[in-house]
Amino acid sequence: MDINKISQVFEDFQIPEEPTFVSDHADFLMNYVIPNSVHLSAPKYIGHMTSALPYFMMPLAKVLIALNQNVVKIETSKVFTPLERQTIAMLHNLIYANSEAFYRNHTHEADGALGLFCSGGTVANLTGLWLARDRILGRKTKQTVDKVGLWRSMQAHGYSDLVVLVSDKGHYSIKKAMHVLGLGSESVSVVPTDKNHHIRLDILEDRIKELRKQNVGIMACIGIAGTTESGSCDDLLAMAELCEKYEQDGDPIHMHVDGAWGGPTIFSNKHKQKLAGIERARTVVIDAHKQLYTPMGAGILLCKDPKDVKAIQHSAQYIIRKGSHDLGKFSLEGSRPGMSMLLHSALNIMGKQGYEFLIDTGIERAQHFAQMIKEHKAFELITEPELNILTYRYVPKKLRGKTEQLDNQDSVNRLQVSLQKKQRSMGVSFVSRTKFYVDKYKQDLNVLRVVLANPLTTEKDLEEILDEQATYGDQLSK
Amino acid sequence: MDINKISQVFEDFQIPEEPTFVSDHADFLMNYVIPNSVHLSAPKYIGHMTSALPYFMMPLAKVLIALNQNVVKIETSKVFTPLERQTIAMLHNLIYANSEAFYRNHTHEADGALGLFCSGGTVANLTGLWLARDRILGRKTKQTVDKVGLWRSMQAHGYSDLVVLVSDKGHYSIKKAMHVLGLGSESVSVVPTDKNHHIRLDILEDRIKELRKQNVGIMACIGIAGTTESGSCDDLLAMAELCEKYEQDGDPIHMHVDGAWGGPTIFSNKHKQKLAGIERARTVVIDAHKQLYTPMGAGILLCKDPKDVKAIQHSAQYIIRKGSHDLGKFSLEGSRPGMSMLLHSALNIMGKQGYEFLIDTGIERAQHFAQMIKEHKAFELITEPELNILTYRYVPKKLRGKTEQLDNQDSVNRLQVSLQKKQRSMGVSFVSRTKFYVDKYKQDLNVLRVVLANPLTTEKDLEEILDEQATYGDQLSK
Repeated sequence: MDINKISQVFEDFQIPEEPTFVSDHADFLMNYVIPNSVHLSAPKYIGHMTSALPYFMMPLAKVLIALNQNVVKIETSKVFTPLERQTIAMLHNLIYANSEAFYRNHTHEADGALGLFCSGGTVANLTGLWLARDRILGRKTKQTVDKVGLWRSMQAHGYSDLVVLVSDKGHYSIKKAMHVLGLGSESVSVVPTDKNHHIRLDILEDRIKELRKQNVGIMACIGIAGTTESGSCDDLLAMAELCEKYEQDGDPIHMHVDGAWGGPTIFSNKHKQKLAGIERARTVVIDAHKQLYTPMGAGILLCKDPKDVKAIQHSAQYIIRKGSHDLGKFSLEGSRPGMSMLLHSALNIMGKQGYEFLIDTGIERAQHFAQMIKEHKAFELITEPELNILTYRYVPKKLRGKTEQLDNQDSVNRLQVSLQKKQRSMGVSFVSRTKFYVDKYKQDLNVLRVVLANPLTTEKDLEEILDEQATYGDQLSK
Repeated sequence: MDINKISQVFEDFQIPEEPTFVSDHADFLMNYVIPNSVHLSAPKYIGHMTSALPYFMMPLAKVLIALNQNVVKIETSKVFTPLERQTIAMLHNLIYANSEAFYRNHTHEADGALGLFCSGGTVANLTGLWLARDRILGRKTKQTVDKVGLWRSMQAHGYSDLVVLVSDKGHYSIKKAMHVLGLGSESVSVVPTDKNHHIRLDILEDRIKELRKQNVGIMACIGIAGTTESGSCDDLLAMAELCEKYEQDGDPIHMHVDGAWGGPTIFSNKHKQKLAGIERARTVVIDAHKQLYTPMGAGILLCKDPKDVKAIQHSAQYIIRKGSHDLGKFSLEGSRPGMSMLLHSALNIMGKQGYEFLIDTGIERAQHFAQMIKEHKAFELITEPELNILTYRYVPKKLRGKTEQLDNQDSVNRLQVSLQKKQRSMGVSFVSRTKFYVDKYKQDLNVLRVVLANPLTTEKDLEEILDEQATYGDQLSK
C-alpha cells in the first residue's frame, strides 16, 4: 500500500471511549500494520543499517518486557545494573584491552563508569560531546557549565569559542548534538576529505594550529570508523597522534570516535587493522542495534577513563543518591529499559567468533558485489567498499563509457533518484541513495548505496538486484 | 541475593571466544538474571513509578522485535510513521481537544508535528526545553543558536541571561536538561512551594517581574502535574494566566508542563480538574511507560502548535531530507524503535474508560491508604495524596504523639532509612523513600513514599505492608 493511502487508515485522532477486544486489535495489526511495515530483515533489503536479528532475540524480548526493569537505579533493576556494567566492560575490553586489575577495579565501581548505555547512536554521540565539553570547561577553574553556563565557563577558561573537528563525512547527529549543547554550526569545524572519504590529516593539523592561535578551545577531534554513506574509516592512528601532539597542559585533545557503524569491525582479525588507533580515543560510540545485531534502541558510549563521566554527574534525593551504584547518575536519559540483557545475551551466544564471521562475511560480500558492479556494463562503482558499504550508480545506455565527458551530470543524477524510488515502491528489494562530492567528476553526485550486513543475502540476491535495477534504469532512461 | 554477591557473577570482562548454546545462556538467565531482578509488577511493590503491565504487552513486544522497524525515516518504518503520528494526535487531542479540521491538517503534516515520541521523560523534557530555548532565541533576529551558538544568539536578542522557572519540587531532569543545553544551575530559577508542594504563585509573579527588569530571558515557565515525590500538581491555570499576562511582543512566556507522572489524570472525569490549565501549555510531557502502562522506554512531548518543532529541525543527504515526512527531522534521537505501536495498542484496547478506571482506582486507593495511616498509631501521614502518591513515616513507640516537640528529628530520620532498607532487603514488599522540607516541622525530613498504580494491589496488601513496617520499625527503634 502507498504511504498516503496507509496514512488514511491512521486519521482518527480520538482515543476510543470503550475498550476493544485484544483479538480485534490483533486483527487490525495483522491487516494494516504488519503487512505495511518494511521488510528490513529480507535478504534483498540491502540499503539499511538495520537488518536481520538472530532468532533468539524474540523470546528474549518477551522476557525483557515481562520483567520491565528500569535501570535508572538499583532499586528498580537490581541484577540489571551489574549485568549492564559487565556488558559495557566486555565492549570496553574489546576496544581498549586493559589489564585484569583495571577491570576488577572499575567494572562495578560506583564512582565512575567504563561507558554508558544509551537509546541509540545520536544520544551516545551527544553524551560523548557533552562529556568532552564539560571536561575541557572544568580544567582550569571551578566555573563549570553546570554551575555558570556555557559562556561564562568559556570566558573563565580563556576561550573565545569552542569547536569540534570532524570530516565532511561526519554523521548529522554531530551537528545536532552541538546544536543541543548550545554551540552553533560554526562550532563544527568541518575538515575536507580525500577521494577515499578519509579526513585530510594535513588540513586537520593546519586547522588545529590555526584554532590554537585564535584561542579557540578544541572540545573534541572526531574520528569516523565507518561513515554512514560509504563505510570509510579515518586514519585513527594518525588522528590520535595529532591529538597527543597538540596537548595542552598535559591533556591531549579529546579524541572521540564515532564507530556507530564500523566499531564492531574490531571483532575481525583480518580487518581490525582498519580501526588501528581507536584504542587511543578518549570516547568511542558503537551502536549495538547495528552491527552487534540487537533490536533497535541500543547505542553505547565507551569511556577510556572511567572517571570522565564525573563531569556529567547528577543526583537527587529520591534517586541516584550520591555514592550509590545507580546507573542513572551518569546517563543523559533517566528511566531506561534493560536493553543490555539482549546485548549481553548476543555477546555470549554468538561469541567473538560469531561476530567475526558476520563482519568478515559482510566485507567479503561487499568486495564481491563491487567486482560484479565493475563487470556490469549498466553500472559504475563510485566508492570501493572499505568495510561492507559501497556506492555505485546506474549509467543510461547512451552514456556508457562517456559519463566522464559530461560537464553536467544532472540527468544522470535525477535518474538515480527515480530508479531508487521505483525499486522501493515495487517492494521486492531495497537499496538506499545518498549524495556526495565525487572527486573524479569534481561535483556532487547522487549514488545508490548498499549495506551488506545480513548474512542471509546470497550472491544470487545481489545478481537479481542488479538485474532489477538495470531493467528499471533502462525503462526510465528511454 | 545481595547486590554485591550478584555483582561477582558479572565480573568477567571478556567476550567469550566461542559461541554458546542458546539453551545454556537461557539457563544462565533463569538462574541468575530473572530471580535477581526486581518484582516491579508485584502488588506489594508500591514504591516505584513502574508497576504491572497489561498482559497483551508481551506478545506485542515480540511482534515489535520481529519487525524491528526504525522510525527515523519512512524508508525503514513505513506504516510506523503514520501510526506514531496518529498515536501522538490521540494524546494531543486528549490534552488540547482541538477541532477535527486541526487534526485533519496537522496529524500527518510533513512540515510540523503535534509532538515527539522520545525514549523517556528526561529526553522529552530536554527536547521541550531545547525547543523553548531555540524559540525564544529565534524571535527577533536570524542569529539562532544552531547558527551562532548560545551566547551570540542571546546577545543578538538582547538577553543578559536565560532562565527557566520551576518549583523546588521539579524533577532532576530539568536541571540536567539545562546543563546539557549549556545553561548552568543558576539558570534554573527555583521557586519555593507552599505546604502542599504547589508552586508559590506570588513568588513566581515577583520573580517574573524581577527577571524582566534585569533583561533576563524567560525561556520557559514549568508547571508540574504530579511531582515525583508527592504527586502534587501546580495550579496550572494560574500559571498559564501569568505566562499570558507577561507576554512580550504578543508572545506569552513558553509554558511547559512536566506531566510525566500525572498527565494521564486527564482520563478521569472525576479528577481531571486538578490539571485544569494544562491545555494552555505550549508543550506537555507525558511518560507512556508510567501511567499509560507501556513497557519502559516511552516518553512523549506534546506541542500545542505543530510548527514549534521547526525550531529544532535537522536534515541530511541520506536521511530526513527536506520536505520528507520522516519523523527523524524533529527528534533529538536518530534511529528509534516503533514503541508507539505498543502505546497505540494500549490506547485502543483499554480505551478512555479503561484508563479512567485505572486512574480513579489508584487515587481512591491512595486516599484509603492515607486514612489507614492516620488511624495507625505507629505512622504519621506527611503528605495527603493529591493523586495516587503519598508520603508518611514511622514513629518510634516512645515518641508517638510527641514528635512535634522534637527540635532535632535526626534519630527519627535515620530510622526511616534503615526501615526502608530492611524492608527492601527482605524482598516481600517495597516502599521507596525521599527527603524534603516539611512545613509542620520547619526542616527536611526523610519520609516513606508510596505510589499506587498497580490495579492488583488490594487493601489487604496495604494492611500487611503497614504491619510489616511497624514490626521492622519497632525492632529497629528498640
